[in-house]
Amino acid sequence: MSHSESFLAPSAVKHRPVEGEHLLNNLRWRYAVKKFDPARQIESATWSALEHASIHSPSSFGLQPWKFVVIEDRALREKLRGASWNQSQITDASKLVVFARKTRLTQSDVDQYIARIAHVRGVSRESLADFHKMITGFASKPGFDTGLWAAKQVYIALGVFLTSAAMLGIDACPMEGFDPGQYYEILGLSSSGLAATVVATAGYRAADDPFAHLKKVRFSEAEVIVRR
Amino acid sequence: MSHSESFLAPSAVKHRPVEGEHLLNNLRWRYAVKKFDPARQIESATWSALEHASIHSPSSFGLQPWKFVVIEDRALREKLRGASWNQSQITDASKLVVFARKTRLTQSDVDQYIARIAHVRGVSRESLADFHKMITGFASKPGFDTGLWAAKQVYIALGVFLTSAAMLGIDACPMEGFDPGQYYEILGLSSSGLAATVVATAGYRAADDPFAHLKKVRFSEAEVIVRR
Repeated sequence: MSHSESFLAPSAVKHRPVEGEHLLNNLRWRYAVKKFDPARQIESATWSALEHASIHSPSSFGLQPWKFVVIEDRALREKLRGASWNQSQITDASKLVVFARKTRLTQSDVDQYIARIAHVRGVSRESLADFHKMITGFASKPGFDTGLWAAKQVYIALGVFLTSAAMLGIDACPMEGFDPGQYYEILGLSSSGLAATVVATAGYRAADDPFAHLKKVRFSEAEVIVRR
Repeated sequence: MSHSESFLAPSAVKHRPVEGEHLLNNLRWRYAVKKFDPARQIESATWSALEHASIHSPSSFGLQPWKFVVIEDRALREKLRGASWNQSQITDASKLVVFARKTRLTQSDVDQYIARIAHVRGVSRESLADFHKMITGFASKPGFDTGLWAAKQVYIALGVFLTSAAMLGIDACPMEGFDPGQYYEILGLSSSGLAATVVATAGYRAADDPFAHLKKVRFSEAEVIVRR
């Protein structure tokens, strides 16, 4: 089966759990790679799985206010590196993904989503009228900050991407250190209604990345978890 | 080995990849549960793995500007349900987690983080002086919006939580439909420097949750992925 379009109901999917220690070891293995091996590329089926894992990210009302810009073009990546404090991951990683948020949530966006639900589920748009009305009300509420709301959703997708990469054995580095204005220009986003929100690079760590050999630092369970 | 404190370097961890279809099927299996089975509780070792997966969430500079409030108390959950549009998941799920962000990032927070790095890695604080200075500059930059920055980090943790739950076979529902002001009062956060940002409920779907039987709706690959 192709990754691309499965359209199953969750109840129709065969789930295979992993053990807790398996999950945790893969999360302990991951870290923010500072130096990628520029010679190692991610094999296409594995990359496709990671793209589709990201497409499956949950979002508020399922609205998916995002696009994921996957950049292969070397010249473009050189330019983006210049807009990213010259960080080497931008050019040396196998893949570069710009997680872009929608800056507006228009009636057309809402209508497109409702049409998509009708298509996937094989139901009429009329049967979705109540949900359509509810989403329209949500999106047009006075004071609703679309950009902030969409940015938060994009960060869910980033969390899904990074966890999924760790499960697949793909190294990654999330990056906020870039100039969104320059990205806007370089990627030609002006008429797109999109804004670069956060970046992830993905590939394989260089054997001599010193950061792979430093112990991961997290606050203790007692410091992070509050029990009530 | 306990989940709690492992302190390994990523390079010292044995990674075991999962197949792309395994990951994707588990993500297709997940959905935002509307009706939990109130009789089914998450077994403690599995829950502990999910807590620790969340603790491992990446964040900007590793600063982890969050606490995860895990609420078992039934009376408290009833009160929170009243502040959450009376949604049944708040009381019926096995677990309720309030993802709270730090509303300020003080010098004390930064110092505590540097002390933690020194402790975990067994190095002197002096050896971290450059990093300490850099983080201090970041946190005290004029116009830096701590609450927004921290909220976005919390959403990474939500993405890690939901993906990890899906891998473990734990059902979940992320929820933004609650009143943060009422949560602030009910949870007594006034002197904590914390604000409820997003909520997740976790447990097991009821057999008769109709939403499990609806096809999952996502935009197509062509609509979400932009290739350059």
